[in-house]
Amino acid sequence: MTDITRIESNARMSRVVITGGIVYVGGLTAGDATQDIKGQTAQVLAKIEEYLGKAGVDKTRLISAQIWLKDIERDFAGMNEVWDKWLAEGTQPVRATGESKLARNDLLVEIIVTAKAA
Amino acid sequence: MTDITRIESNARMSRVVITGGIVYVGGLTAGDATQDIKGQTAQVLAKIEEYLGKAGVDKTRLISAQIWLKDIERDFAGMNEVWDKWLAEGTQPVRATGESKLARNDLLVEIIVTAKAA
Amino acid sequence: MTDITRIESNARMSRVVITGGIVYVGGLTAGDATQDIKGQTAQVLAKIEEYLGKAGVDKTRLISAQIWLKDIERDFAGMNEVWDKWLAEGTQPVRATGESKLARNDLLVEIIVTAKAA
Repeated sequence: MTDITRIESNARMSRVVITGGIVYVGGLTAGDATQDIKGQTAQVLAKIEEYLGKAGVDKTRLISAQIWLKDIERDFAGMNEVWDKWLAEGTQPVRATGESKLARNDLLVEIIVTAKAA
Repeated sequence: MTDITRIESNARMSRVVITGGIVYVGGLTAGDATQDIKGQTAQVLAKIEEYLGKAGVDKTRLISAQIWLKDIERDFAGMNEVWDKWLAEGTQPVRATGESKLARNDLLVEIIVTAKAA
Repeated sequence: MTDITRIESNARMSRVVITGGIVYVGGLTAGDATQDIKGQTAQVLAKIEEYLGKAGVDKTRLISAQIWLKDIERDFAGMNEVWDKWLAEGTQPVRATGESKLARNDLLVEIIVTAKAA
């Protein structure tokens, strides 16, 4: 079948799946988890831009986001500060933010997005 | 581009995004967080109906729901009681329910839905 | 309306919703929750295959997965071991994994997937 495009697949997951006009990006975390919430959020958003680019779109095409924070009470404001500045005006996705421990203890934020394909 | 419709956008998020025949509603929480789980769930469901209405659909068009509870052991039954009565017969969405602390300590429930556009 | 197909609906949810070319499967947990993470993950994945089959597709059509673990530090490796072997080569979905207490205390894992309809 050629109606599903997968980008950067390994045995566990693909980083991006494109099908039916939607770009699905898997949950992304920071590469350098020694950074604080602002640094980790900025890293995750840069990765999202990179993967959206590989799918032929950009952040102005975002549909939805889920943001999972390891410590929402401590890190909600810091994450929002970076997030709000990153979005392009008039193209904000729907969003939900909750607390969830992540795959490693030093990871403070994971973000999952979808976007409309070009 | 005119293939993505966004409703009630601010710097952080849109409340609704419509694209590709799907209505995406962002995570919703209660406006009056002094209420208990039944009251907060009822408030959230009323908001969902309101936003679905702005997108030109109603709850009979629901596709999926994620329900995040601050205290799932205590509040699962109370949430379900309100939820089950709210749904229209024969039009139940798929659903997943987990525990997640939310953006403020007094928020007991957040619900994220998608629906099929008209 | 006949543009939304629902499978195994009760008052609370449908197990599967198919619309707009996408198969949405609700969050699934193990039937026998006395088993450990590997056993529960295997049970959940078998259920996913069963529901995908009822929707006329199989796991090679997976788009996205969210995996919620009750204890991510303890159970991440065990879940992955079963998950990685289960996927079909070259057809991995996008994925996000976080920690979430589930509807009953003995449930260790809940998985939510979408797939491309045939």
